[in-house]
Amino acid sequence: MARPSGAKGEETAERVRAAALSLFARQGYAAVSMRQIAAEVGVQPGALYNHFPTKQDLLRDLMSGHMAALLAAWEQEAATAPADEAPKPALERFTRFHIRYHLARTDAVFISYMELRNLEPENFAGIEAQRRAYEDVLTRILERGAAAGEFRVSEPRVVTRALIAMLTGLGTWYRPGGRLSETDIETIYLNMVTGSVT
Amino acid sequence: MARPSGAKGEETAERVRAAALSLFARQGYAAVSMRQIAAEVGVQPGALYNHFPTKQDLLRDLMSGHMAALLAAWEQEAATAPADEAPKPALERFTRFHIRYHLARTDAVFISYMELRNLEPENFAGIEAQRRAYEDVLTRILERGAAAGEFRVSEPRVVTRALIAMLTGLGTWYRPGGRLSETDIETIYLNMVTGSVT
Repeated sequence: MARPSGAKGEETAERVRAAALSLFARQGYAAVSMRQIAAEVGVQPGALYNHFPTKQDLLRDLMSGHMAALLAAWEQEAATAPADEAPKPALERFTRFHIRYHLARTDAVFISYMELRNLEPENFAGIEAQRRAYEDVLTRILERGAAAGEFRVSEPRVVTRALIAMLTGLGTWYRPGGRLSETDIETIYLNMVTGSVT
Repeated sequence: MARPSGAKGEETAERVRAAALSLFARQGYAAVSMRQIAAEVGVQPGALYNHFPTKQDLLRDLMSGHMAALLAAWEQEAATAPADEAPKPALERFTRFHIRYHLARTDAVFISYMELRNLEPENFAGIEAQRRAYEDVLTRILERGAAAGEFRVSEPRVVTRALIAMLTGLGTWYRPGGRLSETDIETIYLNMVTGSVT
């Protein structure tokens, strides 16, 4: 039985996303053509345009999809937390979550930071709002900790950005299989995060 | 009197570097052509090739020049330190130096991190050695602090990379002229750095 065209279409779109992600990460958005992406997927360029009318649509889809998935994954993580979780364990939960989630998706993370310059203004505004929503998660934990007298944080937004840069930077150099396991790394970073705000 | 051709040549090379830096930062290395760089400088493409036979030579020159200037600036800063400076003031000196130096050169910093993927292997190895030499500066301060019992640092190399990512990340969002001055920002980051290792 032939698969319904809706599912087939979604499968093609998914393969296009994967090919574009890999090509953008290796060569950069500006250097990659829709023709090249089609060739990588093994379809005619026309099949791409059905899903993504322009390369910009594809970039927006990848970056916005990455942020939406990140926010959804955090919601899922937060749902497992006890009600009224104290600031310190909440900070630990966020730190471990951020490290694990980002280390598993270095291509998507790389593009999400590097290709911001290539987003058209309207698309940039949308991605910025998603990034802000994610930053808000950490900012609120820091604010709660400061209010409770547990954290020394006078500028929660600045501290949020500093910590996220530190944690995300891990993906640029850490590779599994070395002397330090992902758990070792998590512990080192967690101690730094905690120390930096207490 | 006509300027000597050596000085004129160096002046052209400098203008080529500035144009390439700006174009690479805005559009990415892979998307920019030598023809485009020549047009930006206002010279024939042939004038470029006298200085930089290939676009790869130009990228290597920019990245290696950035790292060499950074290392030289640190040498100059370190020369003003008292002999046997204790680890804590040394860490403060390094942190303030790193923030100031990088905030003043966001294009060069952006390229130095983003275009690593576009370096040919031999050039990559050269830049990596320079980056390592710069990391060594901070790693040695952390090691001295740990040996003196002043810093809680079990993995100085990991902590070095985490701190450098945090400090360098500032350039992706901080713009002068806002509510927080560069001095305010320096103080916040310095407190986080110190807290993360003590």
